[in-house]
Parts: sequence; C-alpha cells; structure tokens
Amino acid sequence: MARKPLRVALLGFGTVGSSVAKILVERPELGDHVQITHVFNRDVARKRTSWVPASVVWTDQIDELFAARPDAVVEVVGGIEPAGGWVRRALMGGVSVVTANKMLLAAHGPELLHLAATNGAQLRFEAAVAGGVPLIHGVREGLSGDRLIRVAGILNGTSNYILSRMAGGDEPMAVVLADAQRLGYAEADPSADVDGHDAAAKLVVLAGIAFRRHLRLDDIPRQSIRPISGADFRYARRLGCTIRQIAMVEARDGAFHAFVGPALVLRGSPFGLNMGANNVVTIAGHYGGENSFSGAGAGGLATAVAVVSDLLSLTQRTHERGEEWPSARVVPPAARPYYLRFVVHDRPGILASIAAALARQRINLDAVLQEPGYPKDALPFVITVEACEDAPLRAALDEIARLEFHAEPPLALPLLPSAVAEESGAGPQTLGDGPRP
Amino acid sequence: MARKPLRVALLGFGTVGSSVAKILVERPELGDHVQITHVFNRDVARKRTSWVPASVVWTDQIDELFAARPDAVVEVVGGIEPAGGWVRRALMGGVSVVTANKMLLAAHGPELLHLAATNGAQLRFEAAVAGGVPLIHGVREGLSGDRLIRVAGILNGTSNYILSRMAGGDEPMAVVLADAQRLGYAEADPSADVDGHDAAAKLVVLAGIAFRRHLRLDDIPRQSIRPISGADFRYARRLGCTIRQIAMVEARDGAFHAFVGPALVLRGSPFGLNMGANNVVTIAGHYGGENSFSGAGAGGLATAVAVVSDLLSLTQRTHERGEEWPSARVVPPAARPYYLRFVVHDRPGILASIAAALARQRINLDAVLQEPGYPKDALPFVITVEACEDAPLRAALDEIARLEFHAEPPLALPLLPSAVAEESGAGPQTLGDGPRP
Repeated sequence: MARKPLRVALLGFGTVGSSVAKILVERPELGDHVQITHVFNRDVARKRTSWVPASVVWTDQIDELFAARPDAVVEVVGGIEPAGGWVRRALMGGVSVVTANKMLLAAHGPELLHLAATNGAQLRFEAAVAGGVPLIHGVREGLSGDRLIRVAGILNGTSNYILSRMAGGDEPMAVVLADAQRLGYAEADPSADVDGHDAAAKLVVLAGIAFRRHLRLDDIPRQSIRPISGADFRYARRLGCTIRQIAMVEARDGAFHAFVGPALVLRGSPFGLNMGANNVVTIAGHYGGENSFSGAGAGGLATAVAVVSDLLSLTQRTHERGEEWPSARVVPPAARPYYLRFVVHDRPGILASIAAALARQRINLDAVLQEPGYPKDALPFVITVEACEDAPLRAALDEIARLEFHAEPPLALPLLPSAVAEESGAGPQTLGDGPRP
Repeated sequence: MARKPLRVALLGFGTVGSSVAKILVERPELGDHVQITHVFNRDVARKRTSWVPASVVWTDQIDELFAARPDAVVEVVGGIEPAGGWVRRALMGGVSVVTANKMLLAAHGPELLHLAATNGAQLRFEAAVAGGVPLIHGVREGLSGDRLIRVAGILNGTSNYILSRMAGGDEPMAVVLADAQRLGYAEADPSADVDGHDAAAKLVVLAGIAFRRHLRLDDIPRQSIRPISGADFRYARRLGCTIRQIAMVEARDGAFHAFVGPALVLRGSPFGLNMGANNVVTIAGHYGGENSFSGAGAGGLATAVAVVSDLLSLTQRTHERGEEWPSARVVPPAARPYYLRFVVHDRPGILASIAAALARQRINLDAVLQEPGYPKDALPFVITVEACEDAPLRAALDEIARLEFHAEPPLALPLLPSAVAEESGAGPQTLGDGPRP
C-alpha cells in the first residue's frame, strides 16, 4: 500500500500499553501500517524505556498529544473518567479510538458509537471482552449470515479459577479465594469478580457485538458465586454437571434476557471443560448451531494482540459505516430447569413443605438428591425442577425462604442449555463433510 | 445503504445451495444486500421449488447465467472440474466468487486468487474449512496483531466420529467404520476421510488463511487412522492422552511443516475433548498464546451460514485488496516426542533390540508400557521417546521394522503440544482480568 502509516498515540503505558509498543517494535513489518508517535501517561518520566523508538514523544500533557493530531488513539487507561473524556475528545475531532475499556463501553457505549459515526471516526474494542479471543470479527462477519439466538460465556478468569479449582478438589470457597488473593490472582476486594460486576460489563459489550443492542448494566441481574460450596459440586457432579460463573444474553422475540451468575453446566460442554483463567464464549445461531471460541481472557500480551489487530483493521477498512447500539428491551428468562439447594436443620416434614410450595406454583420436581455424611444441623440437599418460568419460581422460593428450618438461604441455579455431549454420550448431530461433488 | 443489492447466481442447488437460498428467503431483511437472480444446476427442472422467489431464473445453461452478468457467483458444485472452469470464467469477467470447494482451492488456490486480484474480483471461501466455524475473519483480522506459529485442527468429522467412538467403548475400528457406513456417516470408500486426503485439502486452505502461503497437497504427509486399535486407546489413556486425526501446519524460520494423521493429544486439550463430527481449530501465536474455535464442521445449514456471511462481506468490503498465496517452503517437523507401538510374537530380547536401534540414533526412551491380558502371538506394547528429529526416528524404525518378530508393522504417532491442562492439573497461566484502572 502506498498509504502512509497510521499515526497512533498511546493513552496509558501500563501492562497493555507497553505490550502494544513491544509488539509493534518486535514486528517492524507492521511499521508500514502503524507507527506510535506519542505515549501519554501520568508521571511519564518513570515510564520511559529505551527500547521504544527515539522518535516517540513521551508526555503527561494530554493537550500536547491532541495538538499533534494523531490518526488514532489507543485508550488503555481504564475506568470511566478521565478516560471517557479523552475518548470523547478524540472522536469529536474525527480521531479513531481503539480501547480495551469494558467499563466505559458498558456505561457509555451508545453515546461513544454515535460520536464516532457522526464525526467520521471509528471506535474499536476487540480487547474489551475476552482479551485475546478474536470474537468481534468472527461473530460480526463470520456469522453475519446466521440469526443469532444466544451468546454465553465465561468472561471472568478469577471466578473461573476459583470454581474450577473447587470442582477439582475439596477446598471450600474461603480457602480458595484467600489463596487466590495471596497469589495476586484476586483483588483484596474480590467483589468485581465474584459478584459478577466485571462479567456484566463485558456482557454489555458482548451483547453489542452479537446483537448491536445496548443492555444497561442495571438490566443485568447478577448473582454472586460466594454461596457455592463443596456440596454443590458433589450434587452437580451427580447430575453430570459442574458449576461455572456464566454471563449470558438470549434473544426472545425482539427483546433480550441477560444474566450473570453461577449456573449448572454439563461437564462435557465447552463451559464445563473450561479451566483456570481461560475465557470461552459460545454463540448459538438459528441455522449454524453452536460455535465456541476460547483462549486467554487476560494478560498484557494477549490483550495487546487484540489492540494491534484493531489498529491494523483501521488501516485496511477505512470505508466502514459506523454502527449504533439502540437500547435493548429486557424480558425475564424463558422457562428453564433449575437446581435448588437447601441447607437445613434436619427434622421430619421439610421435603413435604418445600414440595407443597413448588406444587402451588405448578412447578414439577425432576429429582431429589440427598447424600449421606452431612451433619443434621446443616444438611444440604438438592431438588431439581423441570423447566419453569422465573416468576412462579421466585414466588415459591420466597415462600420457602420464610420457613424456619433453614441453616443457609436457599440457592437457585439455572441449568444451562448446551449442545455438546460427553465422550460416552450421543453420536454426532451432523455428519458428512460439507459439500461433496 | 443506498447501494443496490448484490445480484447473486447460485451454481449448484444441492444441500448447501438450497440452504443458502433458504436462509436468504427466511431472512428478508438481507434482501437489501443480497438477491439471488439465477440458480444453475444440471437437470434443473427436478430442482425447482416453489419457495424460491418467482423472479429467480432456473437454468441448466451456464452461458445463460454468465450472460446475465451477476455481481457474484456462489460455487457449491464441488470437485475440480467443471467447477474450476466456471470459477475462472467468473473471476476473469470481474465477477466475485464465494466457494465452499476445498479441493479446488487446494489444487488451484494461488492461480484463482491471482485471477481475482488482477481482474478486480474477490474470492471468498469461509465455507471451505470447518463449515460453520467462522475462522477466516477471526484469524485474519482478530489475530492480525500476533505472529502465528502453529495452526492445528480436527477437520474431518467422519474420522473424529470413528476415533472418539473407539475411545469411548471397546469396539474395533472395523466395527465402528462399518457402522458409520451403514448409517451413512462414512462413504462406501472411506479413504478420503480415514486416510487424510479430505483433511489435507482443508489444511491447504487453512494454511492459506493463517499464513497466506500455499502448501502443495503433495507436500503434506498423510498417515491413515486405519491401524489404530483399542490397545492404542488404552495405552494413550495411561499417558493422559487420547488419539485424534490431526491436521497441522507449523511455521519454522520462514518455512513450514505440515502433517495429517493420527496423533496423541492430551485428553483435557481442545482436541482430546472434541467429540463426534465436530470440528475444532487451534491457533497458536507468539504473543497471544493458543486460541481455539469449534463448531459444526459440516451440514448444509452451517456451511450455508458461512456462504451467506461471505456474500454479506462482499457488499460491505468492496475496497479490499486482493491477496496472493506464494508457495510455502516445506521442512521436516521440529523435534517432538513420539508414541511407538509394536505388536509382536513375544520372545526374549525384543525390547533389547528395539532399544538398541533407538540408542544407535541417539533417541532417548521416555517410558515403556506393557499391559497384561494380550495374547503372546500378537502382543501390543508401547515405547514413548523424548523429543527427537524426524530423520533419525525414521532410520531407527526402518531398522526395527526389518526385525522378524512383528505381528503388525510398527506404528509411530507424534505427541502433540498443547497449552491446555486438565481439571485437576496446573493453575492458570495468566490471571487478572485485562486492563484495570
């Protein structure tokens, strides 16, 4: 291409920002397409490194950066402000933005996309969900021929690390979490991870990618993984399942249901098989069935690959139409089966009163599981129920929660649909090998 | 967009062609972008259906189709000729082509890409590898910032069905294969599937996608899955592995090694976990680590989604530069560990003579496995060896094969690298959750 390289200003030189610079320095063949001209950071002097080309201007003055009129800005500062103000300023000046900032997109995505579209700039954010997993292009273009019906993912590496380690051993949540904090895998305040706020922000971005609609963060119910116990993993295993923090959005008649929280997933499904801090996203389409994408959800280099890929796509796709995310209408989930776990002070009549409350809401029991070996004063047992609507289930659980025999609040987890069978399970759903002569 | 819809001629109205028409009919919102104007098929009268819009012209005269000057042609006829001639004719006339034809691309990809680039036409082939799995856009754009080092996949659903069923039960290959043929999952002559020719053609296309280089089909060594036995699955399991037909291409110092055949893969890896006729592809990058993509590798509708997605991308990306696939230089594999299985008429000294032959080539043994319960006159046992080069291994195996105690020819399978650990295994490789404020 005879075109000049894209002149790029890096906003932020932390783990991701410096990894972006590292890739561009180590791949000089990209220099014809992308060149870093400025690096902005607070106290920039302490960030300065010798391996970055001498031509790069280091600054802690945002005005100096904008005065240089870059072609694109990479925003890897994070947080809503001041990052949001800088992104707006770039877009309003017709400067394209590549960002990894899920919180900013979740809060202000529609406004920023509109700013980009109306100012001839582009806004790219492959790095904002599932770090290194190349979702956007695969979903947007590779699946544009399908009618998507559901997107679900494991989007928070810390929660998945905690739950997959609990599934493998017999350690309680508190021990695994404390260990993860000691090793630096989890924050001192782990609530963004374990209570689902981080995954919910990513789900907003994912819904934008898949459906081009904006879910408000407040429209996404979040359930914490904190109450999950070793007993839950043992009961889940008896059902052929394990437990994962799932972020999911489903299309229902032009509206959407979204949800973040622990769910039962088949052990042989892409979710059940996903270990450690890896991310996985499954996309279900009306025509093509289920596809899954997995890879490193975090890490400076994996995230930087997504940023550099976005920068390269800016150089190649200059004629792209801007997109907008209209608000999504939110509805309750479709009828689905649930796993209900109770921990009770054991005495006669408990099962009868729970079953009666469920029957009053016309909810059918599927199985009752009670394993031996638990103390009488904190006895966990499980009832699975057939697919039911959200409202009658909540009504039944409210009634049950008021009964006096509970040692812990009742726990309800949805059982997730999945198309993927276990090794010993059913045969293939489709066979043959594509078009043959 | 004010642009007129893309006028598309369908070449072929079999499973995939009719599924393309079905999606376009059922998604009228796509009518602003893509409209079928012609359907070409031999004996077209028997193909005619009432649900296709009356405006569509049905013809068995290829000249009539080209005379109408479509904007794009969908080639889902398959086979090298006459499909190849029609694709050339389209491209030379500046008509873009969307094809699912892996055999044609494997044989003539570079020539066809050159024709497209020099005639202002585009050639798209998302449907030619792993049917419904949206690989091309994810790899080409989502991972363009990385330096790719290895692409490996399970690309043949029939072979994966056979091997994953053998892994689950105790049925011999002959029984599973006969069953698959009876059920219509495998052809009467299964060699395209089990001997690796189908996967090799797809690997040529995959290498073109990932590395923009052309591997000649003849440059890809193919090993059949036919010799794999129940004993192999039992020994593989003792090594934490299972066996899959793998198609792989690795970059080595500007050259490439490619291979199709059975390999040992970790049971907890994306390959080991892939069941039935599903396809999975993993892409390893220098910076971003390993990503995997999986989904339905075949089926009319999944493949048709890829074709429709390609058509939509033609309407949106009219300024794209054509690509070329220069020839890839081919080299032997990097040093890697192997699984060696012998079936012998048992007598003293066998292990000593095999070990001596390996030692003469400076190949180190890793483990010797011999399970009880096999007959003395056809005793299977296994030696795993540490990472070694291809040439000395072949020399040692040639020497060993000439010894007189074999009941079956020796079998050598590579052990595949994989980044993904089992549930009980190691902790996460990267943690934290991407950029934080």
